[in-house]
Amino acid sequence: MAIAVRMAQTTWEGPLASGTGTVRMGSGATGELPVTWAARTERADGKTSPEELAAAAYSACYAMALALRLGEHKAVPERLAITATVTLDQAGGGPTIVSSHLDVTARVPGLGKTAFDTVVGEASDLCPVSRLFAGAKVTVDATLEPAP
Amino acid sequence: MAIAVRMAQTTWEGPLASGTGTVRMGSGATGELPVTWAARTERADGKTSPEELAAAAYSACYAMALALRLGEHKAVPERLAITATVTLDQAGGGPTIVSSHLDVTARVPGLGKTAFDTVVGEASDLCPVSRLFAGAKVTVDATLEPAP
Repeated sequence: MAIAVRMAQTTWEGPLASGTGTVRMGSGATGELPVTWAARTERADGKTSPEELAAAAYSACYAMALALRLGEHKAVPERLAITATVTLDQAGGGPTIVSSHLDVTARVPGLGKTAFDTVVGEASDLCPVSRLFAGAKVTVDATLEPAP
Repeated sequence: MAIAVRMAQTTWEGPLASGTGTVRMGSGATGELPVTWAARTERADGKTSPEELAAAAYSACYAMALALRLGEHKAVPERLAITATVTLDQAGGGPTIVSSHLDVTARVPGLGKTAFDTVVGEASDLCPVSRLFAGAKVTVDATLEPAP
């Protein structure tokens, strides 16, 4: 049996430029989320988009991978904050996710900077969503907060 | 300037197995979405997960790509329904997104089956999120609904 099988559905009506879509999560975690081409590429205007959803998937996946690797180093995170930024641009003849950047801030009692940097790299290798972005430029800025 | 730059943040507290996370979309399209390892890999229990968010990104991206390609074939979709199913499993020594499947149902007045099948393939090539899954097994089942 697979570790996880998850679904989502988008319905769409009309041409790309003037049409509208609705995203529904299989879990019911959110209500219906409207999407439009204008909101995707101009002002988001309170609407999500494929790139924002990919950033959300990436940040959630990386946070869990980092928590797992920290545990293997006998460290428990008090708080991790992972911001993912996904950039869509023209490349290779079409719209392409050209880069995915993570800003990682961690409060991990008892963990030194060297071990932290090791774990940050390990989490990138472990996170399955991170590996989806293998064709894009993937960068990580990681900050270990000082003990209070 | 890029076509789109979109962000999301996940915060996480505690070990992987017993900790909890919160996903926030940069657009504010949803409120805070809780995530846990158990909800990701056992019963979703009303919570989203990286795989569900990736499925949402994929279905929304593919819907827009299909709408664009239909337009180039002088066809306007009355309604597209795209369900994406993302499967996480052990592969190559770690948790891996091994497959991504689309179920596509389309109501497109005046479009024949041959043109539809062409456009379905073109949309897969165009959609930038689809191309992220290049390392996974990607399959598409597409159905053109008969004219009423």
